[in-house]
Amino acid sequence: MGDQVNGVISQVEKLQVEDEGAGDPMDEQTVTPWSVQTSSAAGVDYNKLIRQFGSQPVEDALLDKFEKVTGKPMPHLLRRKIFFSHRDLDQILNVYASGKPFYLYTGRGPSSDAMHLGHLIPFIFTKQLQDLFDIPLVIQLTDDEKFLWKDLSLEKANELAYENAKDIIAVGFDMEKTFIFSDLDFMAQCPSFYRNILRVQKAVTYSQAKGVFGFIPDDHIGKVGFPAIQAVPSFCSTFPFIFGERKDIPCLIPCGIDQDPYFRITRDVAPKLGFCKPSLLHSTFIPSLQGAQTKMSASDPHSSIYLTDTNAQIKNKINKYAFSGGQQTVEEHRAKGGNCDVDISYQYLRFFVEDDAKLEQIRTDYSTGKMLTGELKKELITILQTLVTEHQRRRAAVTPEVVKQFMTPRKLNFKG
Amino acid sequence: MGDQVNGVISQVEKLQVEDEGAGDPMDEQTVTPWSVQTSSAAGVDYNKLIRQFGSQPVEDALLDKFEKVTGKPMPHLLRRKIFFSHRDLDQILNVYASGKPFYLYTGRGPSSDAMHLGHLIPFIFTKQLQDLFDIPLVIQLTDDEKFLWKDLSLEKANELAYENAKDIIAVGFDMEKTFIFSDLDFMAQCPSFYRNILRVQKAVTYSQAKGVFGFIPDDHIGKVGFPAIQAVPSFCSTFPFIFGERKDIPCLIPCGIDQDPYFRITRDVAPKLGFCKPSLLHSTFIPSLQGAQTKMSASDPHSSIYLTDTNAQIKNKINKYAFSGGQQTVEEHRAKGGNCDVDISYQYLRFFVEDDAKLEQIRTDYSTGKMLTGELKKELITILQTLVTEHQRRRAAVTPEVVKQFMTPRKLNFKG
Repeated sequence: MGDQVNGVISQVEKLQVEDEGAGDPMDEQTVTPWSVQTSSAAGVDYNKLIRQFGSQPVEDALLDKFEKVTGKPMPHLLRRKIFFSHRDLDQILNVYASGKPFYLYTGRGPSSDAMHLGHLIPFIFTKQLQDLFDIPLVIQLTDDEKFLWKDLSLEKANELAYENAKDIIAVGFDMEKTFIFSDLDFMAQCPSFYRNILRVQKAVTYSQAKGVFGFIPDDHIGKVGFPAIQAVPSFCSTFPFIFGERKDIPCLIPCGIDQDPYFRITRDVAPKLGFCKPSLLHSTFIPSLQGAQTKMSASDPHSSIYLTDTNAQIKNKINKYAFSGGQQTVEEHRAKGGNCDVDISYQYLRFFVEDDAKLEQIRTDYSTGKMLTGELKKELITILQTLVTEHQRRRAAVTPEVVKQFMTPRKLNFKG
Repeated sequence: MGDQVNGVISQVEKLQVEDEGAGDPMDEQTVTPWSVQTSSAAGVDYNKLIRQFGSQPVEDALLDKFEKVTGKPMPHLLRRKIFFSHRDLDQILNVYASGKPFYLYTGRGPSSDAMHLGHLIPFIFTKQLQDLFDIPLVIQLTDDEKFLWKDLSLEKANELAYENAKDIIAVGFDMEKTFIFSDLDFMAQCPSFYRNILRVQKAVTYSQAKGVFGFIPDDHIGKVGFPAIQAVPSFCSTFPFIFGERKDIPCLIPCGIDQDPYFRITRDVAPKLGFCKPSLLHSTFIPSLQGAQTKMSASDPHSSIYLTDTNAQIKNKINKYAFSGGQQTVEEHRAKGGNCDVDISYQYLRFFVEDDAKLEQIRTDYSTGKMLTGELKKELITILQTLVTEHQRRRAAVTPEVVKQFMTPRKLNFKG
């Protein structure tokens, strides 16, 4: 799409130039794979992020093409532009339209066994895409990254990878089409993984990595080399047991926008290595219970609904912490209505209620004051209690044997 | 031994301070894992290198201890101080004296199938040590490094590793006690390799690596991370199939002094990771045929005797190119004698004639003018023809099956 023609370095220069011209200089925002922060009460400015990162907004014409090409209704997370930004989604739609194969790649950094609702979003979306396109999916668990970035032992990071795999499997992926791997273990299972890592590392200079990730001289050398490890699942030759000798099968990566820096580098080096550039679909962040300034964080229990929470905990957290866009008194609320744009309960419903008509009804009722904050929260509580309970039930059914099957390098059901 | 107490950074600072105070500023010398150059006609100043690197000279008292502890005559390459420098050799002798186990680690970067005599030196010496101490040996073939540094494909670098393994095996290592591995393949054979690499990478900052190796911003990120890969065979836990669960078995690394930067870093991080610091024995370089200013180089056929040379080629190269310390005329030579210090043929005899009495006889005869340059060269030609012919014979007997056996991770004959 030409957005990477001049390579990573010029990409970074362009980003800085655009930054200078961007709106209120007081509204600072930092979005990296390791930190999402903004000083704006309205939360992350996603349009600004698109300009900064040089990605493309998800526009209506592209969504029309999506439905036309697939012949099916699109996932609600795409329809509502919660996946708001992309790179070359149109190209992957062309691939699908022409009957050629592609695959999906997403991942998770297993830094905690306390996965929260926000962590589920890319997986829920990816499952919907897998069902829709009927294609293979690879899921990378970056236990090596978490060892490198956090105060975690290798043993603990690896253990968390396997714990998190259970939550991911519980989302409902098709075992015949899904390969989940821990970097620590996959490295010793498949020679192609390390070989492609070396190919990428040889193609990225320290200057480039520093420009994209902001490394400082005191950062350890493990961090400097890591981007290649997250890059290579973008290339089908990393998985010869799935794709055989082929090097020409592109992939689509659904991920949080904070992961984009990895894939800017990946897209820059891909043509030099004779590989396909991955396409991307970027999601916004699910806000914390307290409001949109920060994303839900596993390390702050007041900000998050965990996948291990009880019904009582979910009810209590939402009633107690979920930032409300409602008015101070019932009378005032009935008169003025609530503000859905800042109301966290409504925002969460946008993520988890698939039915557009139902969501629109809630929006109308709440905005006009017909629905009170307590009623809105009750709606959300019921939905999340059901979602979390169902998740817990499915997770409990995921035996170590099932985990092992998903995480064994093997042939997938792939119509290459 | 206190030489690393203040860590890598202060090591580098100390090196720079000493450099400023060192002799003739016109005598510049560069010794890195990738380049050995000096402007001095006398060749590399090894005493200066000991000061620069902060290692210890091999002194007579240490050699006496070596013979006392082992109860056997020491290898001629140590006796003649061709292995001239060390780190903690005395500590490894204490380990041996107390009946505790240790192992040997050496390696080769397989950038060419044209191995020359200089490449054999560390292996000949290591075999002598293995025979003497009766201990396990691991040999790392850094095909990944050669891919990263040279214009070589991964496939070619890996192929060269297996070709070079044949030459190494032909030196005569005991299969029951020797494990040879290609990094590219071992990464997918043993999970401990990548895990220890990550541990080292997490413990070394970019600043430190830059200080030791002189990385520049345009160097690719593969180079930046590589030092950890050469570091970890120093730790016995990288080879659980040999050493089981143990983490307390130290190693001794015989290597060219140019490889020391890798092991300065290794020794710096080892205690932080709960691993043993490796001990080292550093060799001088075998000079090129043209003289001591440069070391024998595989890329310059006139500088080297290759392990594939015919008897006629050996004879021709030595007669034509070997720099002579003899006089211009026979009469002058008879009167003044030859200069063994600069005579390359004599220098080579120091590497390859084990018998001290024979070498001393040659030295006396040549220095006094009794032996002429042609006679000295003839002596060397005969010895090298025999050595290379025997090597070729043994190499031809190394079948792919034998290579495979040496290169399969397996239990070794280890009296832990």
